[in-house]
Amino acid sequence: KSYKEVLRLQMSRWLVMFLIGVFTGLIACGIDVSIKYASALKYSTIKHYMDECIKTNCNSIPLLLWIAWNTSGVLIAAILVVYVEPVAMGSGIPQIKCYLNGVKIPRVVRLWTLVCKAVGVIGSVVGGLAVGKEGPMIHSGAVVAAGISQGRSTAFNLDFKIFEYFRTDTEKRDFVSGGAAAGVSAAFGAPIGGVLFSLEEGASFWNQALTWRILFTSMISTFTLNVVLSYAKGEPWNLSNPGLINFGEFSNLSYDGFEIPIFILIGAMGGLFGALFNHINYKLSVFRKQYLSTLKWPNVLEAVIVASMSAVAAFILIFTISNCRSLGEDENENPLQLYCEDGQYNSMATLWFQTPEESVKSLFHNHPGTYKPVTLLLFFTVYFLLASWTYGLSVPSGLFIPCLLTGAAWGRLVGILLSLIFPDQPWADPGKYALIGAAAQLGGVVRMTISLTAILVEATGDITFGLPIMIVLMVAKWTGDLFNEGLYDIHIRLMSVPILQWEPPPITSNILASDVMSHPVNTLRTIERVGRVVDMLKNEPHDGFPVVEDDSENDGDHFGSFRGLILRSQLIVLLKMKIFCEAESEQTVRNRFSKLKLKHFREAYPRFPSIEHIHISAHERDCLIDLTPYMNPSPYCVKDSASLPRIFRLFRGLGLRHIIVINNHCQVVGIVTRKDLARFRVWHHRGRMGLEELQISQSVRSTR
Amino acid sequence: KSYKEVLRLQMSRWLVMFLIGVFTGLIACGIDVSIKYASALKYSTIKHYMDECIKTNCNSIPLLLWIAWNTSGVLIAAILVVYVEPVAMGSGIPQIKCYLNGVKIPRVVRLWTLVCKAVGVIGSVVGGLAVGKEGPMIHSGAVVAAGISQGRSTAFNLDFKIFEYFRTDTEKRDFVSGGAAAGVSAAFGAPIGGVLFSLEEGASFWNQALTWRILFTSMISTFTLNVVLSYAKGEPWNLSNPGLINFGEFSNLSYDGFEIPIFILIGAMGGLFGALFNHINYKLSVFRKQYLSTLKWPNVLEAVIVASMSAVAAFILIFTISNCRSLGEDENENPLQLYCEDGQYNSMATLWFQTPEESVKSLFHNHPGTYKPVTLLLFFTVYFLLASWTYGLSVPSGLFIPCLLTGAAWGRLVGILLSLIFPDQPWADPGKYALIGAAAQLGGVVRMTISLTAILVEATGDITFGLPIMIVLMVAKWTGDLFNEGLYDIHIRLMSVPILQWEPPPITSNILASDVMSHPVNTLRTIERVGRVVDMLKNEPHDGFPVVEDDSENDGDHFGSFRGLILRSQLIVLLKMKIFCEAESEQTVRNRFSKLKLKHFREAYPRFPSIEHIHISAHERDCLIDLTPYMNPSPYCVKDSASLPRIFRLFRGLGLRHIIVINNHCQVVGIVTRKDLARFRVWHHRGRMGLEELQISQSVRSTR
Repeated sequence: KSYKEVLRLQMSRWLVMFLIGVFTGLIACGIDVSIKYASALKYSTIKHYMDECIKTNCNSIPLLLWIAWNTSGVLIAAILVVYVEPVAMGSGIPQIKCYLNGVKIPRVVRLWTLVCKAVGVIGSVVGGLAVGKEGPMIHSGAVVAAGISQGRSTAFNLDFKIFEYFRTDTEKRDFVSGGAAAGVSAAFGAPIGGVLFSLEEGASFWNQALTWRILFTSMISTFTLNVVLSYAKGEPWNLSNPGLINFGEFSNLSYDGFEIPIFILIGAMGGLFGALFNHINYKLSVFRKQYLSTLKWPNVLEAVIVASMSAVAAFILIFTISNCRSLGEDENENPLQLYCEDGQYNSMATLWFQTPEESVKSLFHNHPGTYKPVTLLLFFTVYFLLASWTYGLSVPSGLFIPCLLTGAAWGRLVGILLSLIFPDQPWADPGKYALIGAAAQLGGVVRMTISLTAILVEATGDITFGLPIMIVLMVAKWTGDLFNEGLYDIHIRLMSVPILQWEPPPITSNILASDVMSHPVNTLRTIERVGRVVDMLKNEPHDGFPVVEDDSENDGDHFGSFRGLILRSQLIVLLKMKIFCEAESEQTVRNRFSKLKLKHFREAYPRFPSIEHIHISAHERDCLIDLTPYMNPSPYCVKDSASLPRIFRLFRGLGLRHIIVINNHCQVVGIVTRKDLARFRVWHHRGRMGLEELQISQSVRSTR
Repeated sequence: KSYKEVLRLQMSRWLVMFLIGVFTGLIACGIDVSIKYASALKYSTIKHYMDECIKTNCNSIPLLLWIAWNTSGVLIAAILVVYVEPVAMGSGIPQIKCYLNGVKIPRVVRLWTLVCKAVGVIGSVVGGLAVGKEGPMIHSGAVVAAGISQGRSTAFNLDFKIFEYFRTDTEKRDFVSGGAAAGVSAAFGAPIGGVLFSLEEGASFWNQALTWRILFTSMISTFTLNVVLSYAKGEPWNLSNPGLINFGEFSNLSYDGFEIPIFILIGAMGGLFGALFNHINYKLSVFRKQYLSTLKWPNVLEAVIVASMSAVAAFILIFTISNCRSLGEDENENPLQLYCEDGQYNSMATLWFQTPEESVKSLFHNHPGTYKPVTLLLFFTVYFLLASWTYGLSVPSGLFIPCLLTGAAWGRLVGILLSLIFPDQPWADPGKYALIGAAAQLGGVVRMTISLTAILVEATGDITFGLPIMIVLMVAKWTGDLFNEGLYDIHIRLMSVPILQWEPPPITSNILASDVMSHPVNTLRTIERVGRVVDMLKNEPHDGFPVVEDDSENDGDHFGSFRGLILRSQLIVLLKMKIFCEAESEQTVRNRFSKLKLKHFREAYPRFPSIEHIHISAHERDCLIDLTPYMNPSPYCVKDSASLPRIFRLFRGLGLRHIIVINNHCQVVGIVTRKDLARFRVWHHRGRMGLEELQISQSVRSTR
């Protein structure tokens, strides 16, 4: 590689990141505009019939209409997920977390997944579910990144023959972390939060150049969204729409030192509510996994039922609570009069009669008296239950907005109580406490740390509120962690993937490599019979095989002298290109060797043919294959006396998926894979702790 | 370790981080308040004589007074640095960068360094040098962290016997990165910027829990500063002083899309000016290193000369440029009338007649007509030259503020020109362009990326300006990188320390471990004669020695079968505790072994006695020492066929300081140290590139 080529690669990296930012921003715009128009249509039609029917007492018509809107939106979303692409379900954040951690989840970054996700999320938001469109943006950004960086789409069988250098797991993964950051950035107008998100959730190794590129793509993504949305609103250069949701401008966002204890209390409440939310959702998810996971239409049915329930619950609340307010005090697109006097509207109705994003903003900014305590209490209860039922349905759905909305509701309630206890104190502002409550609830559910702080600070647009937000998130996480894990981690655990935590489990330093390793190991000799290679590939699911010499004295304790490591994918390409020859004609191998270039490996990436699709004749089975030129002659290895924490740090720091264990004589004695490590997990309960071993699903493969 | 102990450790980590935040904040307050009072006294005395002398024509009196003030302040600073603690020189950021990278620089985190730094920076700022107090805060925070986390002070011979578990390189380093972040946070009111700083400059491995603690200490530090400074200003709960410098509130900070090309141009200018600044400073530093580094009083003299020059230059400019403005338009503590009419003041004089921080704020916020273009041009030229002369003097000095100030001066000039070309356009605001110019200049000099973006955004207090700041920093870095490196990197290179870059140098994948490794290697046998150990420690400067078996066939190619690694510090403790015995009495060793605990190693940390201070009698030299129980039996090792990038990633990802190279038979063939790797550095010039080997100083040792 000459310097020019190095420079060219650098430039392509920036170009790819730029494109990722632009396309992620555009997709976010598309979703936003579609939802805006569809929701406006939905609410104006229903409002029309409601206004009519309040006079003529035909209230069942708007209710049925509402149910019809909801079910049809959700039906589209659920059908896309259940029948087309199941991996497009939920927010996609657990899946992206796994991907960035180095676990390969099939089809997670394919084009069809993106289509189902984008169309589906429009359906579920318009369908009135307690979901947001922000989480799915992160998944969308990741798919965009994977697609653009590879310069081709297997879905359309297109190969632009560009960016071929990036067709490796590591490069692709770097771009995907950029895409995820761009998604966060477009969703919340939070470029730095986006970078921190992809670092916190994924990258174990911080690389200055990569991080700078990720920030670049995040900036481009929010800028694209900003320009396009501002243009769509008719104020082309105003640039006041940095994200799908922003919290609006707080007129008076300051705090006094004595409020800090209150923030701490709210944080603790957030932790409790979050833990409760996670518990309910966990129980439901276990139930779903047990009874529904293999079925198709019942999943669709469940989604439709929840959609109708949402409409019915909203309808009942609107008609039972009459919380009348004068028109004109606050912005309001679809004010419903219902049983209020002329010139007034029902503020409970507006909470349901707009997208959740808009409700969040109303709770943050509307005048102090807008909502009665009972309105907020009932709204919170119902929405909390709906939201915890909804996440995990077979529709694309974001978790951030429902958490913010429930949190804003009870936070505002706390604010109202404070203003009753301390009347005429400017600091006891319900809107401000709605923000604090929203942060607490979100922190209690997802348990993210620094990235969530940055996201919320950036979405608020005001740095001065950083400390309160951080205190609240910290307390919420601590409180919640006493009871259970964050919701994403719960769902990752339900997926049974071998994800590695941040640090090696404590009290494991007495566990040695020889205790965790898998053995016996199937090894290949440096010059191996083709038939043996084929059989091994067919019988063993592993991704890499140690290459050894003189395994004659294979006595069960060790399996030959360690020479190198060869990957399954390499073996498959070798077999496919028929890089082998009959015994004693080494010259042929050399000739064939010169034919085989890195290009062939890259072309096959990432969908290497399965071994079943490669035809090897009975005659060819007796040929010999020389692995020395292709194997990695110096893969990472540890001695059998290495401790678990040491191996763990190697895996985490370098992103390994397997490591060879050797003895004092450099003989292979075992192999440690990601699954062997991820099995170990610490439980602690009432002051005692111990190790438990987890079940790891066999269907996922580790990547990098 | 039981669960309770794990929990207790966690709690102590948070407690230590809390204390680091509080003390760093308090030190920042102390420095700030001292400088404020001393400067106020200085300027009011000089102003008094100036106002007098303008009438009586005794202008030499205020000039001499000014020179006296400057020289006495700088004299204190220079004497502290030159005669007490040379490592307190400059901003300390290069030193902290090295420390976090894993290079040990003697005395860099000692208490005396902190004292010299803190007192010295007051001296140099009050002494009117073109320096800021922000950079030194980062160093101060690091020292605070190192001190508190170790629970003792060797300077006072105090040992509180607490936090003993943290007395290891890794733990200490984690706390120091927290301290550096707390320093940034206190300096700029930028907690997230602080976290990003310590990640960008130091931590190669991102750890969620650690990052969260670092953010916590950053928040505590800025909060402490905020509370104390607000209290000092008489508004206890107002909390409007998050940092030593904040950029004040911009009334109208918005931008239009068409300004982006202008930002790009300004970024390029910043890159050019920055590269020029670095070039001048580099030449001066080389000169200083060559002629002044071994001398003492000439260094003091140089600092005093620069201090007087600063006063003279300011004096000349004030008296030659008469830029009169009406009083009362802008805030102004010491308005100088000079030759202006009554009711007016000279705005050139105010630029010099306040601390640089205040001048930055004036350039950002004063009314558009405050400064004439010629004022700004002359001020910029003079200050630019002064600043590039000043950094590297033997005084504690920050680089951020002089860069921001020069940048703000030419940025404001650009803004004025724009407002002349596009009259009556609200976007062409000189104050806004001053901010952009300041960012460009700073970015062009230091070449930091994401952390600088976050710091500037947080100091501005407004998220909306994130994109312009980022664009400017990005272009400035790219432009500057065409010419030379960032100033901190230049100074690190001048220090000749083996710092590792982010990524392995390109085009080095054909360099193998066998090419870079040092050999022959001095190895120890598992059971070794004490005399040989002592001799080896005396003759070899290395930190770790491979332990081998049957090195009988040591034929120069390899040096015995690899069994483990033992550290110099461990050997020294073993010798000091006399854990050896006469041949054939193994029982004694066993008995002594049980006496030796981890505690003994921790107590000696980090100032292990030198081998010269350990007395070993001639008789004892014949004793045997069994290394097996103490050595690390499974240290990281690579095969001789491993490539340089692979070894590099191991070092960077795991923070190694040496790795053993073995051959196919597990025999030690060499050792690769940090210095072996850091030697390789890529040069590129006019489209060609190659590898160069650097000289690495022998006086620094690598850590971790």
